[in-house]
Amino acid sequence: MNSLSTACLIVIGDEVLSGRTEDKNINFIAKRCDKIGVNLAAVRIIPDDHKVIKDAVIECHNDFDYVFTTGGIGPTHDDITTECIAKAFKVNIEVNQEALRRLKVHYKKLKVVLNGSRIKMARIPIGAELIDNPVSSAPGYIIKNVYVLPGVPKILQAMFIGLEDKICGINNMISKNIVVHSAEGEIAEFLENIQSKFNEVSIGSYPYFRPPDVGTNLVLRSLDINLINKASLAILKKLTEYKIQFEEN
Amino acid sequence: MNSLSTACLIVIGDEVLSGRTEDKNINFIAKRCDKIGVNLAAVRIIPDDHKVIKDAVIECHNDFDYVFTTGGIGPTHDDITTECIAKAFKVNIEVNQEALRRLKVHYKKLKVVLNGSRIKMARIPIGAELIDNPVSSAPGYIIKNVYVLPGVPKILQAMFIGLEDKICGINNMISKNIVVHSAEGEIAEFLENIQSKFNEVSIGSYPYFRPPDVGTNLVLRSLDINLINKASLAILKKLTEYKIQFEEN
Repeated sequence: MNSLSTACLIVIGDEVLSGRTEDKNINFIAKRCDKIGVNLAAVRIIPDDHKVIKDAVIECHNDFDYVFTTGGIGPTHDDITTECIAKAFKVNIEVNQEALRRLKVHYKKLKVVLNGSRIKMARIPIGAELIDNPVSSAPGYIIKNVYVLPGVPKILQAMFIGLEDKICGINNMISKNIVVHSAEGEIAEFLENIQSKFNEVSIGSYPYFRPPDVGTNLVLRSLDINLINKASLAILKKLTEYKIQFEEN
Repeated sequence: MNSLSTACLIVIGDEVLSGRTEDKNINFIAKRCDKIGVNLAAVRIIPDDHKVIKDAVIECHNDFDYVFTTGGIGPTHDDITTECIAKAFKVNIEVNQEALRRLKVHYKKLKVVLNGSRIKMARIPIGAELIDNPVSSAPGYIIKNVYVLPGVPKILQAMFIGLEDKICGINNMISKNIVVHSAEGEIAEFLENIQSKFNEVSIGSYPYFRPPDVGTNLVLRSLDINLINKASLAILKKLTEYKIQFEEN
């Protein structure tokens, strides 16, 4: 699994840290990364703070193949992501003419004035490549390995799916789930033995707790379907031997 | 607002990063921190990886007043949090006799065998203080400024609320919401002016997008009710002047 590209998601927003807004983007991006074969290796939620954003962007730019940021690219005073990213990469910001054109078309259609605050959304670091926004026109952008996206889930989702062909993943990660109708503690010992025999299969064990129903979801993941099948068979054999009920899916 | 204690939450779990599980603990802990007057300043989601967990714990231990971890303290092979924390603080792990006693009582009541895998949940770094688990008995623990908690939301929630009296917060942070029935771009300019006049009030602007309804939630936060009222009045005056509809709540 070493050959998978790595990604980090940086969620920028005081409102998520204060609990006012429940983030909806992490799980969406995690699932999409899984689907396109990129290893989402870390997520950070950080506040609307110049130094914190700048430092996080530099660190993640160095540590991961892909960095996604969400939030902070709107028209208001607390939208400071672009400023911080420009500082991180020591580039200037300009009114991007193509971005401005898109905003003009969009707001003309809506019969809404493209005022100074809205023009702020066309201010893009020099040299960045635009990311299309099919919902509300104001683009995101790509600078080095950093993909800068908005925080509003519906807009983020449309934009993310649109840019996936720019991301090189391996889409043959295979996974298999086994629902075990027994607590983790009943199966932990043989599971550890099986995991130690299959290094190339990652076996995750996730308890669920919905009294009176207590059980465990097992998730086997690997690039090799044969190894998944072998590890899975070893688990099913043990479950049968212990008379523990399960379902495959 | 500098006098608020800071906290960082570390969510440990491959299942969250792969998108398989949607985290429910971040928003819960964010809200509780807000309620008890602790500034949740960062969240990290990290994989089940020894080095990554150890490094994150050391870094957050140094950078924040409180560190909460969720996940990885169950009985299975992929529960490695305690090992990593012991390594981070260079302490040994022992079977904690009080933790073992609680597990014995719990499993006796359930008529379930307390096997070797389950006894793993009584293995606690030496010197750590136990955190009560009123749901399923296996305790969390506090070591230095790190609060080690499970990942299952129902259990986490009961445990977190129980330990809140150990956390020193300032619970007089005041917030006020204004729902503005207009897009961010319409109000951004005067909002920036008002924010620049009220340094001690944090004014957050959060667009919502539910076509045809597009609008903005404004959140004013401060330790000083008078400043909130003054800043709020300045905003309402401008909204009225611009003939923009709003609701206070």
